This record gives sequence, structure tokens and C-alpha cells, in this order.
Amino acid sequence: MSASHGPHGDEKETARIEAFSDGVFAIAITLLILELRVPHDLTASGLRAALVDEWPSYAAYLVSFATIGIMWLNHHRLFGLIRRVDHALLILNGLLLLTISVVPFPTSLLASYLGHDAGRLVAGIYSGWFVVIALTFTGLWRYAASPVQQPPLLRVPLDGPEVRAIHAAYRFGPLWYVVAFVASFLSAFLAVAVCGALALFFALPPKPPADR
Amino acid sequence: MSASHGPHGDEKETARIEAFSDGVFAIAITLLILELRVPHDLTASGLRAALVDEWPSYAAYLVSFATIGIMWLNHHRLFGLIRRVDHALLILNGLLLLTISVVPFPTSLLASYLGHDAGRLVAGIYSGWFVVIALTFTGLWRYAASPVQQPPLLRVPLDGPEVRAIHAAYRFGPLWYVVAFVASFLSAFLAVAVCGALALFFALPPKPPADR
Amino acid sequence: MSASHGPHGDEKETARIEAFSDGVFAIAITLLILELRVPHDLTASGLRAALVDEWPSYAAYLVSFATIGIMWLNHHRLFGLIRRVDHALLILNGLLLLTISVVPFPTSLLASYLGHDAGRLVAGIYSGWFVVIALTFTGLWRYAASPVQQPPLLRVPLDGPEVRAIHAAYRFGPLWYVVAFVASFLSAFLAVAVCGALALFFALPPKPPADR
Amino acid sequence: MSASHGPHGDEKETARIEAFSDGVFAIAITLLILELRVPHDLTASGLRAALVDEWPSYAAYLVSFATIGIMWLNHHRLFGLIRRVDHALLILNGLLLLTISVVPFPTSLLASYLGHDAGRLVAGIYSGWFVVIALTFTGLWRYAASPVQQPPLLRVPLDGPEVRAIHAAYRFGPLWYVVAFVASFLSAFLAVAVCGALALFFALPPKPPADR
Repeated sequence: MSASHGPHGDEKETARIEAFSDGVFAIAITLLILELRVPHDLTASGLRAALVDEWPSYAAYLVSFATIGIMWLNHHRLFGLIRRVDHALLILNGLLLLTISVVPFPTSLLASYLGHDAGRLVAGIYSGWFVVIALTFTGLWRYAASPVQQPPLLRVPLDGPEVRAIHAAYRFGPLWYVVAFVASFLSAFLAVAVCGALALFFALPPKPPADR
Repeated sequence: MSASHGPHGDEKETARIEAFSDGVFAIAITLLILELRVPHDLTASGLRAALVDEWPSYAAYLVSFATIGIMWLNHHRLFGLIRRVDHALLILNGLLLLTISVVPFPTSLLASYLGHDAGRLVAGIYSGWFVVIALTFTGLWRYAASPVQQPPLLRVPLDGPEVRAIHAAYRFGPLWYVVAFVASFLSAFLAVAVCGALALFFALPPKPPADR
Repeated sequence: MSASHGPHGDEKETARIEAFSDGVFAIAITLLILELRVPHDLTASGLRAALVDEWPSYAAYLVSFATIGIMWLNHHRLFGLIRRVDHALLILNGLLLLTISVVPFPTSLLASYLGHDAGRLVAGIYSGWFVVIALTFTGLWRYAASPVQQPPLLRVPLDGPEVRAIHAAYRFGPLWYVVAFVASFLSAFLAVAVCGALALFFALPPKPPADR
Repeated sequence: MSASHGPHGDEKETARIEAFSDGVFAIAITLLILELRVPHDLTASGLRAALVDEWPSYAAYLVSFATIGIMWLNHHRLFGLIRRVDHALLILNGLLLLTISVVPFPTSLLASYLGHDAGRLVAGIYSGWFVVIALTFTGLWRYAASPVQQPPLLRVPLDGPEVRAIHAAYRFGPLWYVVAFVASFLSAFLAVAVCGALALFFALPPKPPADR
């Protein structure tokens, strides 16, 4: 709408979408703790054993927290480059928020069934969902960096070092989660370990653009 | 209050109400996931069947997520046009936030009973609540765009293209949800499908004003 | 700290406290819906009766939502007048956020026991808690408007019309909730009705200062 | 990235991290109330007794609320001094948010078992977790105030009074929580009381820098 056009209006618009997205990320990441259950009516030794037995819950919590945190970081970086938001980007961003909001559910499944008979099934659902998130995120980025939008949605040149660095970083993102998904057919623990390792890997500092 | 008068104070005031509203929208949309329940103590094949049987929960989740998301988008557009907030607008906005905050409850009802004996009852409650939301939103918009308020609450001319476009878009909003409500007497699935289709329809890009 | 002194730093400081407080208000008001319980495993007619029987939950939800909403509005007005936040105001604001965050618990008590044997007990806890909130809010306001702080915390003259109007509006606030509390000894319904009426009353537009 | 460099971009960057962190703090502090359970199906006298018996829940709630609140205050003060955020600070901040988000779980453990056989175990977990939070916070501060980062991350001189005052205030923070942890081997109540006293102590106004 013309009222919110111009560089000032666009910046405010982008800021509000960032703020709403941040809210959803912050809530999803904080709600994860509600999936940890307190064992009831136990003696001290019974409680100690029950808490130790809950370790799959802690592992699922940590990997999901780290993954949502990394996704926030990437989202934050991406929106730092975005100057203008169009309708399709709003919808793609909404899809990404949907995939993030869902995370507590596969996390809870994993916490309940890791180490049990259905462990590989839930590890497959869990890592498969991360494939969906990574694909959605890649789609959002590809759209934002596409030369088709005129004027461009990014505030930096599409062939500049920042954009090239992000392209390089995201190229194999979904593939790595496919590796985790495939691993779930072999071993639930392996799949979760791959997801955890990916979160640690993506938490490493980004390689600075060459001209920096 | 005089201290917050003037264009600068009004803008800050509007921004804070937007921020609070965004918080409520973000929380309501993210809390929806808590309604998905993890089946307990099952074997792998039992869990797979139980998760497939939960499909009404997933449908209810998706439709509610999309609907709250669309409502946020519309709220966001509307407040992009608002320059000044008066007391009645604050109260109307509070009523809208109330209707949005309630959504997890009919969603949970739908997730529990869709496909059961009480399916049409819960689909009626669900789509009926969407009628209430649509009416509240229309009331908020009508009040904001009313020529009675002096100085006007909008930053654009009341007979300009943006306002006319929104009037056109919202004219039939509540009616469509009445269609979903009526459909619930025939079939719960039909009512939910209409609600989902409406969310997709309202997610389409708005028709640009003619002079743009 | 000197780094955040000066009018600019003070304003940023105040804005961040408002934003954090808004977050707590928005979350507390949206979490209320989690207290509504979905009856399980019923036929259509059984579910209809069970939902009608849950009316105390809906009443408790509405009164609590309206009360937190009104408290947000008042908090928002108050902080619109505040220029500078000192340590004691931070602590008083934290106490107010504590009282607001607790509201879902007495609301849930009321929803569970209104209409039962323990109705007057829970209505007493509920309205008694509102007395605590009103007293905390009054304390926050009294401190902010006290002439003892130099430089003053408010951006308007302490003897000006805005301050006098707020003094007048809050003078009897806690007392009204004491009336609701006393009423709970007679009838739980009466106490809840008084709380609801107070929320509606405080939702009326503030009387403009005479010189406006 | 060069696009967000310069004093303006750095400030916006810092503001967004503060906002996301505030969101997580606000949600964690407000979720605590969900751990309070409503006793069901009791007479008035039974309910009164059950609510009185729940006092460990109230104590756990209050101490956790005060502790997260104080951590927010400290986080807020620290970020008021930060001019620039680098990748490692982002990760350290993420670790701090992780430790804060976890708090509802040990709080719930404490609420369930304080006064029972497993009281000392849960008080040890609870105060031990506060040691972890205090260490993470100290690590974040030490990194931010380290002379190794060039240009410095703080906006004030590293040997100035503000930084020295914070160094002094945080020097013994983790140690005090170690005292609470050790106390848990003697008495669960003592450990919780120490944690509560520490929250009150850290809520006292900071000693102003000498030159102020």
C-alpha cells in the first residue's frame, strides 16, 4: 500500500515481520521445556533412577533447542539483508514459522520413544521434520535472493559476497538432514546424534566473505 | 493525554498497541501445538497407527494456524493504515485479541471429536467461532475507517483506493464463515474444509488498488 | 549507569521495560485458555451437556482476560507518563508482573470449583488476589508520582491534570476489589460478578482532564 | 556482514538480540505458573487443606520467579553496556537462554518433592542448576568485557567504573549458589531459603560507581 511505501515504510514493515517471527521463535524454543515430565510419587532413590532414565528427553530437548536457536540465528541474518517484503515472502515466512512451531511435537514423540521399540520410527519423524524445516528455509532464501523480484528484496547486490556466502552455506543444509533421516532407519541414536552434530556445526561462525 | 499527543506520540502509541497485539497473536499461534497429544506406551506399529489416527488433530492444527496467521496479516495491514488510536479502538482491539486467544480451545475440541459422533457439533462450534472472529475484525475495521472520528484514525483518505480495497475484501468475510458454519450441520469434514479453503483464499495477494 | 543517562538513554531504558512488561502481560493473558479443559470420550449429547456445564470456566476466563487486559491498559497509560525508571520502580514493576503472572492459577481454581461446595473459598482467593494486584499497581503509581524522586520520574507536572486524573481514578481501585472479596463470603457468583463489573467499569474511557 | 556494519547497524543488531532474549525471559518467567496444580474433586475444607499443603509449590514459584527476574535485570544491564555483538557472544547468549528456559523443570521437581523423602535430591538439582546459570552468566560477562575483542564489545572503557562495579558484583555470584547447593545436602529447606535470600540480595540497588 502506498502509505507504507518508500525506504522508511519498507524498513518499518520488515522490522515488524522480524519482531513477529522472533516472538514465534522465542515461544517455540521456550515451550520445549513443557515436554519434560516430572515423575511422581517416588522415593529419593526411585526419583534419581527415574530422572536418569529420562535422558532421551534431555537429549531431545537439547537438540531441538539448539536447532531452533540456529534457525533463529539464520532467520535473523537473512532478514538483516532484506530491504523489502512482498506478499509471497510473507507467506513463505509464515510457512517457516509453521514448521518451527511444530517442533515441540516431534520432540515430545522422540522424548517418549527414544530407546524403545518405536525409537527408529520417532527418530525418522523427528529428522524428517528437520528436512522439511531446512527445505522451507532454503525456499525462503532462494525466493528472497531471486533476481526475478524488481526492485530486489535484498539490500545487497545479488552477486555480492554476502549473498554468495549464504548460498554456499545453505546449499547442502537440507541434504545433511536427509542424511540424518536415512540414518534413522539404521539407528535412532545415530539419527539424533547427526541432528545434534548439525546444530553444533551450524553454530560455528560463518566464513567471512573474502573481501571483508 | 497531552504528553503523548502530536504525530510523534500517536505513532509511538500505535506502535505499542501493534507490539502487544503481535505478542498475543504469536503466543496463540504457537500454543496450538500443545493440543497435539503424544500417544503413550505403544509398540512401533501401534504408534504408527495411533499417529495416523490423529489426523483430525493435524487438520485442526493446520487450519487454525493458517487462520490465525491470516488474521495477523490482516491486523498488520489494518494497523499500517492507522495513525491514531482512541479508547474505543483499544477496546475493540482487545475484543479481537480475546477471540484470537480462544482459538486453541475450539481447535482442541475439533481435534478430539472430528470423525466421532460429536463431529458436527464441534465443527459447528469451531466454524461458529470463526464467524465471531470475522465479525469482530470487521467491526474493528469499520470503526477505524468511519468518517465519524475527527481527526480521522487512518493516515490515508477514507475514500482512497487502499480503504476501498479493504472494504471490498472484508465485505463478505463473515458471510463466508457463516457458510462454513451452515456446512457443519451437513458434514463436519465439509465445514473444516471450507475453513481451510478460506484461509488459503485470504492468503492470496490482495488485489492492488487500481491507481497503483 | 552513565552510558545510558541523558534523555535518549532514559527513553530507551523505559521502552525496554515496557516491552518486557508487555511480553509478560501478553503471555499471561494468552495462557489463560490452557485452563479450559476438553471433556473426553463423550457422545454428541454428552459433550453438549458437558460443555454447558463448564460455564464457570468460561466466566472465569472472561473476567480474568478482561482484568489482565485492563491492567495492561493502565500499565501502558502509566508508562506513557514515565520518563525515567529507577531501581525501586524496576522492583515494583517486577512485583506487579508477578501478581499478573499468577492470575491463571486462581482462575483455574475458580473454573474448577465455582458452583461447587468450595465455590465461596475459591471466589475469595480469586477476588482477594485482585485486591493484591490493585494494591501493587497503586503502589507502583504512588511511587512513580511521588515528589520525593529528584529528578521526577514522570514527564508531566506532578500537580498537572493528567496526574490528578489518574490519582482520582486509582484512589478507590483496591477498595472496589475489597468489596468483591467481602461479597465472596456471601456468594461466589456475586463476587465474580463484581469482578466482571469492575473490569467493564475500568474499560470505560477515562474522564479527560478538565483543561484538555 | 558489511550491510549491518557501522554504529547504526550494530545498535540495531544489539537491539534485536535484546528483544529476542527478553522474549525468552518473559515466556520462561510466565510459564512457571503452569507448574502450580489445581487439586480436584474436593470439598471446601479438603480444598483448603490441599492448597495449604501445596506451599512448597508456592515457595518454588516465588524463588524461581525472583531469580529469573533478577537474571533479566542483570542481562538488561549488561546489554545496556554492549555496543557490538560478535558470533561468540551470540552463542554464549544462546547458552544463557537455554539455562533460563530450563528453570521451569527443576522448579516443578522442587514443587513436587520438597518436604518429601526426595527433598534434598531435588533441592540439590534446583540449586545446582542455579550454579550453572550463574556460571553461564559470568562467562557471558567475562567474554563481553575481555580486552581481547578488538574493537571492544562494550561502549564504556573496560577499566571504567561501570565495568569495575559489575566485575565486583559478579565475582562471587556463582560461589553463593555453590553455598546453596552444598546446603542442600544438609537440608532442602535451607538450600531453597539460601536461593530466595540470594534473589532478594541481588534485587538490592547496585552500589553506584564512586565517580557518579
